[in-house]
Amino acid sequence: MRIIIDAHGGDLAPLETIKGALAALDCGERIALTGIPKVIRSCAEENSLDISALEIIPASSVMEMHDEAKAVLKEKAESSMGAGLRALASGEAEAFVSAGPTGALLMGATMIVKRIKGVKRPALCVVLPGENPALLIDCGANAECRPEMLLQFAKLGREYMRGVVGVENPRVGLVNNGAEESKGTQLQIEAYKLLASEQGLNFAGNVEGRDILLGACDVLVADGFTGNVILKTVEGAAALLFGRLKELFYQNTASKLAAAVLKPSLKQMKDSLDYTKYGGAPIVGLCKPVIKAHGSSNAEAIKNAVYQAVAWQSSGAGERMAEVFASEKGEE
Amino acid sequence: MRIIIDAHGGDLAPLETIKGALAALDCGERIALTGIPKVIRSCAEENSLDISALEIIPASSVMEMHDEAKAVLKEKAESSMGAGLRALASGEAEAFVSAGPTGALLMGATMIVKRIKGVKRPALCVVLPGENPALLIDCGANAECRPEMLLQFAKLGREYMRGVVGVENPRVGLVNNGAEESKGTQLQIEAYKLLASEQGLNFAGNVEGRDILLGACDVLVADGFTGNVILKTVEGAAALLFGRLKELFYQNTASKLAAAVLKPSLKQMKDSLDYTKYGGAPIVGLCKPVIKAHGSSNAEAIKNAVYQAVAWQSSGAGERMAEVFASEKGEE
Repeated sequence: MRIIIDAHGGDLAPLETIKGALAALDCGERIALTGIPKVIRSCAEENSLDISALEIIPASSVMEMHDEAKAVLKEKAESSMGAGLRALASGEAEAFVSAGPTGALLMGATMIVKRIKGVKRPALCVVLPGENPALLIDCGANAECRPEMLLQFAKLGREYMRGVVGVENPRVGLVNNGAEESKGTQLQIEAYKLLASEQGLNFAGNVEGRDILLGACDVLVADGFTGNVILKTVEGAAALLFGRLKELFYQNTASKLAAAVLKPSLKQMKDSLDYTKYGGAPIVGLCKPVIKAHGSSNAEAIKNAVYQAVAWQSSGAGERMAEVFASEKGEE
Repeated sequence: MRIIIDAHGGDLAPLETIKGALAALDCGERIALTGIPKVIRSCAEENSLDISALEIIPASSVMEMHDEAKAVLKEKAESSMGAGLRALASGEAEAFVSAGPTGALLMGATMIVKRIKGVKRPALCVVLPGENPALLIDCGANAECRPEMLLQFAKLGREYMRGVVGVENPRVGLVNNGAEESKGTQLQIEAYKLLASEQGLNFAGNVEGRDILLGACDVLVADGFTGNVILKTVEGAAALLFGRLKELFYQNTASKLAAAVLKPSLKQMKDSLDYTKYGGAPIVGLCKPVIKAHGSSNAEAIKNAVYQAVAWQSSGAGERMAEVFASEKGEE
């Protein structure tokens, strides 16, 4: 298996992506960096990193945050992101990891790697670490959704959780503003009907915000607007609480001593709630695995995203997704 | 001033509502309970509570969770909620507090107390305690919204924060899935334009989920679906974090001792983040203050909601809201 990493994606690139690529070699697979060879080599040299075990797929530019997403298809087709996606599409690799701009990665992946036949829109998802890991899908790819898209997200999410995370019969919930099936906007009301009548879907009904992190479901279906707001609200709530906790620990000598005792397990708890520790955000619904790593990814996050890509590819979840949508097409 | 409390609203009624009413007498205003006189009196007697200082507005039934919302206007018009709203509308009181079913209270308040002239839809809001208090509006009254409703929420929220919470020139943010003005669904894109071009509104642009609790704005404008999901997601995230913290404290003898030192300030921190400690959820856009107390309100929460009602009524925010919409009508 060969995994490509976008050398120039993310705030800490290329140093942390190179380090992450080197760390990821432990997985025993071939790792390639796509990027500007001269830049990669001089960064490695300056930091005394031996990159002889990494392959390099040459590119000539970088997708920047301020670039329009569609540039990845045109004037920046030769960027590290564009070149990586093309290498993936042409069969030179099995998966692609990038911490570059989300919009460009979504557009590039959709147009270059292409969708699984029958999939209307690829979705961005995140495994939220709560009482049990739960996949929030979509969390930002499609702000505006139709009910049948939410049904597709449910099926894609189910296969991901089953194959990659190992949940046997994932419980699928619809994020809503109440438990009753009449709740929500027209989108949720219609989607509820589709989800409830779908054969073979372990549909658990509506899930309210309060239960999202408390283990109510394994797959949380939402439109990309709502999913994005949820994901970032959880981040903000955690930041606020850990910030307050820190203030409290530094209050006086007694609290400082007490905090010192608790520090290691507190760090462990904080890490257990940090979804970036689990890898990146998978983009599902594409012909091949593409993972969006967090923009602030360090070497460890990049390495975790590569491991996630390997697990995804090895799991056969991609083939299962294709089968699900192929059999659907036959039914129509 | 006379404040009415729905004696039978909430999971802990009538005992906690009666206790809350008694505690609220400290504010120096007249407090009336609306409910079934016999039930109120026997509950007070059984618990040795002297309720002679409270007034009672008689009702003959109770709005239950499973009742349809519109029952408050028809077969349950004589319920404690229905009777309380009518007494408020007819001028017998200045504000109404209920921990009863939200849907019924919204419908009853809208139809009986009536909207401020020019207001399309009343909104339910909550003051979120984060880095600074921020009013989330709407958090559940209107799942489906039009852009002009969001503009109205912004104005209502501004007057509430200015009058009741004392924020001089409230910064208004639009909850969105990105900072750029092109972000969101059609609703946010259109609402952004309305908010940006509104004279006299201190519009701070889009607010992402991450910044909601981190003090980005004083008024957070959202449709009721999104607002509800945010509010409950924050509740769930806090429940998860405090639960994990508790586990961590009980790990071993050393952690238990350390936790004992931190316990008082931790309790204080938890309380500072618990929005129910600040009172209830104001329903704004009505001719008179109506406050939805949390369904699980205890005596303290009821008392806090009454204090909030008194502050609201005294602040003149209601008159200001009416002026804002009256002058608007003139412009049309």
